[in-house]
Amino acid sequence: MTRRRLIIDCDPGHDDFAAIALAVTSGVFEIEAITAVCGNAPLPRTAANALAIADALGTSIPVYAGAVAPLLHRYDFPAAFHGVTGLDSAGATLPPPRRPLAPGHAALEIAARVNAAPGEITLAVVGPMTNVALALALDPDIASKVRELVFMGGGIVGGNVTARAEFNIWADPEAAAIVLNSGIKTTMFGLDVTNRAFIDTDDLKRLRAAVPAPNPVADIIQFYSERSGDIAAGRVPGPALHDTCPIAWLIDPTLFQTESLSVTVETAPGPGYGATDADRRTWAPDHLPRIDVALELDRPRLARLVTDALVEAARRIADRR
Amino acid sequence: MTRRRLIIDCDPGHDDFAAIALAVTSGVFEIEAITAVCGNAPLPRTAANALAIADALGTSIPVYAGAVAPLLHRYDFPAAFHGVTGLDSAGATLPPPRRPLAPGHAALEIAARVNAAPGEITLAVVGPMTNVALALALDPDIASKVRELVFMGGGIVGGNVTARAEFNIWADPEAAAIVLNSGIKTTMFGLDVTNRAFIDTDDLKRLRAAVPAPNPVADIIQFYSERSGDIAAGRVPGPALHDTCPIAWLIDPTLFQTESLSVTVETAPGPGYGATDADRRTWAPDHLPRIDVALELDRPRLARLVTDALVEAARRIADRR
Amino acid sequence: MTRRRLIIDCDPGHDDFAAIALAVTSGVFEIEAITAVCGNAPLPRTAANALAIADALGTSIPVYAGAVAPLLHRYDFPAAFHGVTGLDSAGATLPPPRRPLAPGHAALEIAARVNAAPGEITLAVVGPMTNVALALALDPDIASKVRELVFMGGGIVGGNVTARAEFNIWADPEAAAIVLNSGIKTTMFGLDVTNRAFIDTDDLKRLRAAVPAPNPVADIIQFYSERSGDIAAGRVPGPALHDTCPIAWLIDPTLFQTESLSVTVETAPGPGYGATDADRRTWAPDHLPRIDVALELDRPRLARLVTDALVEAARRIADRR
Amino acid sequence: MTRRRLIIDCDPGHDDFAAIALAVTSGVFEIEAITAVCGNAPLPRTAANALAIADALGTSIPVYAGAVAPLLHRYDFPAAFHGVTGLDSAGATLPPPRRPLAPGHAALEIAARVNAAPGEITLAVVGPMTNVALALALDPDIASKVRELVFMGGGIVGGNVTARAEFNIWADPEAAAIVLNSGIKTTMFGLDVTNRAFIDTDDLKRLRAAVPAPNPVADIIQFYSERSGDIAAGRVPGPALHDTCPIAWLIDPTLFQTESLSVTVETAPGPGYGATDADRRTWAPDHLPRIDVALELDRPRLARLVTDALVEAARRIADRR
Repeated sequence: MTRRRLIIDCDPGHDDFAAIALAVTSGVFEIEAITAVCGNAPLPRTAANALAIADALGTSIPVYAGAVAPLLHRYDFPAAFHGVTGLDSAGATLPPPRRPLAPGHAALEIAARVNAAPGEITLAVVGPMTNVALALALDPDIASKVRELVFMGGGIVGGNVTARAEFNIWADPEAAAIVLNSGIKTTMFGLDVTNRAFIDTDDLKRLRAAVPAPNPVADIIQFYSERSGDIAAGRVPGPALHDTCPIAWLIDPTLFQTESLSVTVETAPGPGYGATDADRRTWAPDHLPRIDVALELDRPRLARLVTDALVEAARRIADRR
Repeated sequence: MTRRRLIIDCDPGHDDFAAIALAVTSGVFEIEAITAVCGNAPLPRTAANALAIADALGTSIPVYAGAVAPLLHRYDFPAAFHGVTGLDSAGATLPPPRRPLAPGHAALEIAARVNAAPGEITLAVVGPMTNVALALALDPDIASKVRELVFMGGGIVGGNVTARAEFNIWADPEAAAIVLNSGIKTTMFGLDVTNRAFIDTDDLKRLRAAVPAPNPVADIIQFYSERSGDIAAGRVPGPALHDTCPIAWLIDPTLFQTESLSVTVETAPGPGYGATDADRRTWAPDHLPRIDVALELDRPRLARLVTDALVEAARRIADRR
Repeated sequence: MTRRRLIIDCDPGHDDFAAIALAVTSGVFEIEAITAVCGNAPLPRTAANALAIADALGTSIPVYAGAVAPLLHRYDFPAAFHGVTGLDSAGATLPPPRRPLAPGHAALEIAARVNAAPGEITLAVVGPMTNVALALALDPDIASKVRELVFMGGGIVGGNVTARAEFNIWADPEAAAIVLNSGIKTTMFGLDVTNRAFIDTDDLKRLRAAVPAPNPVADIIQFYSERSGDIAAGRVPGPALHDTCPIAWLIDPTLFQTESLSVTVETAPGPGYGATDADRRTWAPDHLPRIDVALELDRPRLARLVTDALVEAARRIADRR
Repeated sequence: MTRRRLIIDCDPGHDDFAAIALAVTSGVFEIEAITAVCGNAPLPRTAANALAIADALGTSIPVYAGAVAPLLHRYDFPAAFHGVTGLDSAGATLPPPRRPLAPGHAALEIAARVNAAPGEITLAVVGPMTNVALALALDPDIASKVRELVFMGGGIVGGNVTARAEFNIWADPEAAAIVLNSGIKTTMFGLDVTNRAFIDTDDLKRLRAAVPAPNPVADIIQFYSERSGDIAAGRVPGPALHDTCPIAWLIDPTLFQTESLSVTVETAPGPGYGATDADRRTWAPDHLPRIDVALELDRPRLARLVTDALVEAARRIADRR
């Protein structure tokens, strides 16, 4: 069986780390490129983190830097959750990468690779959609050449960064609108499922025990756990690793239930800026474009899959030291 | 035990009929007035229907006509659901009322009665909020004199008349904003629960069997059932009687679970016009005004309560013939 | 020649004072009522000021208090321009009124008087439109019974309280939308003309010289002048008496040039809230409702008319002392 | 004296033709590139037209194709004004170009050329701003390297394609917002001046007489004149050649008076979509970014300059035949 060709567009980011680790260790993908975008941290940080992750996991996947800023939105980076580096650790950090970023802009690279392999490339977007939107704006034809697109972002019921908007979409709503209007076959993993995509205390213990210290994977996840208000309030036992969901679905679609819905991104300034509105009426107009939206998940199975991947990542990183 | 003093503001409307029948037959309310507003049908229809209902049920509750039109919104009346009269029947209709409407505007009457009995009057609003908004605009002081307000309207997850807006709120969003910003202690019954507030086939049979023909109550509910797309599509076995929910909660609050949430009405023109946005984040700002929002219901018990009321109403109407 | 029957709805307010003085001293109006609304100051202040003005000018015009707050908008009163009382003076103030406010709500009074004399009453609105909007909301039929409506508010080119919104409209945009959508024959006097409706240094001297001290009229206008940023910056030689324009036009329509335009009030929250948008395209759709908008004025003639009225008012007030 | 280095970004378009002709024949520019964007017609048309113009005028300026579509907005091309080709003629057309489009995307080319000559390149944008916005999104650093930007678009007082929006901005408001927020020193030529930038009957006669038939320049301008509703209604004697204004100002800034204003592009869906809002209050906040906005022009001198250029263009094209 051939491996699915994949580009991961991300802004690591702690859950981005988990998503990349899951993709790399799963063995089911041919990861063509990792592209970085500003989001959880400024671009120099997210690009450096993406490179460090790809390298620490022992891959030679080329890593490209992309958009320095969203198309229109300007905001403060969410250092409260991801630290100043975007991938702060409670202890050990990843080793410095032994190779440089690949030359070229992420958006151009995405367009070039999709054009070079029509119908072959899957895009997994786990950060703001600026890079993919720029690729589409420069070359709208690639919309028909992408195999499919999966993303973490939005939410039908509500948001996190505002009452109605989730961070990845809110960070660049105009980019998200470009992507969701593109006609690419798309599956959305929003807060509706990702808020429940947490691992638990036993999972964290298993990750800690995977290798003797230093264990940067456990330390990175621990930092993220310590910043979680939901954990502090006792509402969840461990961190929600949002970005792992679209990767996990590509590996095993039975982990989620999806529904086909019309989803619109709000780009009007105001309290709804960046919200993803879905028409859930049973008599919603049939002619509107629809995407698949994940609404249910098998949390225990997902947590096992993700923890296994993190354990394997911890081992690979230890082996390379 | 003293009976709760109640004003019902409504736009009958088939489920308004059920709500009034439930309130009247429950015996737990001192219904001071029924006030009519344009909504499901033009005001002359809703006022005439409200009067016919109050009279047919054997009450002497005064019925007042109120707002002829929403504050700003202009729309076509939803005759597809309620028929041209707003209370069309599949067979027999209510007898013509033997008394006239009470003189005076509903909004002025609401303000006068609340002022006359500070802290005593509960408002149950099961139509657009124009009348109550006008009362508040004319005399903001009544906000602190209303005992509490319950309403059917809105929805946290989505809408019916548009993807995001429910009819009662969408019909006059500015009025709803005035009411929800007033500071009155408020409990909301939106589509989140009312879409599930249906009675079933057995309930319908029991209502039909309550009295020999003519049975206008059964015929009115039957008309409403026949217009339901959800019933036609097999998604529910009987009609959702939305407007009964706030009345039922006043009778027995254990029928519902509520949550305290900040709810904002969207008044910006556009696709969200009339939507009720709630902040469900666990870390939502504490200082924003909140209302109680019903999110879960005990449907079987509610259906029994409502069917009992409809059966009793059918008998009362038959007895008066 | 019969005198035109007039209701003045106002929020005095220094230029409201000038507008009332102009209407009273002109002798061409039968002023049926003066109604006060919250606007330049809280309602108790504007109502007291309106009563003090009507009484000081020697009239027995009944004065009614109306809306305590705008329909939806909440804002801080502009004490920087009108002082804490809404009619602060640089010296002498008006004598306390020797009669009370008339009983009843301004909105009900407007509706009742218009209903009692269909086609007879002209409404001059020189404050936020809350009172008139409430009258129309309670009884939409009066729209066809008002003779015509003139108002100071809005602006085609830009605003004062925000870049795009003028105070009277911005203070209650929903009310303004109700009124402008009502179909009443309407003439608008916005900042397009009222910013240029200033009197000059000689006019101020003439007013000061009209009567020996105490001269509360001169002192009131002086306070207003001292708060004008435009005067301080040397852009105009004296205060723009915005509210006088619609009254002056009723007295002498040759003072202004008007154009028939479609005007929309922006009610969407955001930077345009309260703006009045006009369609000035030569090929604008013909079917949209239009109002007359004043775009040019004969400033010297207007200033003379207004100064004459202020001088006469100063004399009347002195005579009554 | 060295010639000013210029890139013209355009969507020819009849007035684009006039703008390019003015720039080429003036002799004061080193035109580095002409870049085409979708706007008055689909990209294949505007790119072909730009190439035909550059070639017919005898230049070797490279012409690049850019954005196929606006970032987000989708609309019907305005064939009523520019014909199906975007440059329809009432008679003779331009000869087919004898050279191909230059390879590469306009946005990348703009970024590359600006980066290669920091502080040297002036951008003249006379179509929707998609190309420049994409260049800025891909490489925000170029904002500080552009010498200055001039554009035809928007309007302070009103619009043409809607009551409030002008075509070039309305066609891609998000792109315009990116450009106007970029911090590049910018001068705007909106409908405030361009609606008055018409040539007259004598000018048209002079252009017609410039060369014996075939005279494609006269025929192209004639087509444009025949589609003008303002000419048909007798409001102007000849066509407004909007796009010539920013080029003319670069040649002779004394032709226009400008004012420094804060200008915001409305990107909220609704009736104001694509409007350019300016803060003209004398007390507008000082800290907001400002651009120079042309508000007055010396129409007769501009008309002479433009007609001279069109005559010269007609001769050059005739000479090359």
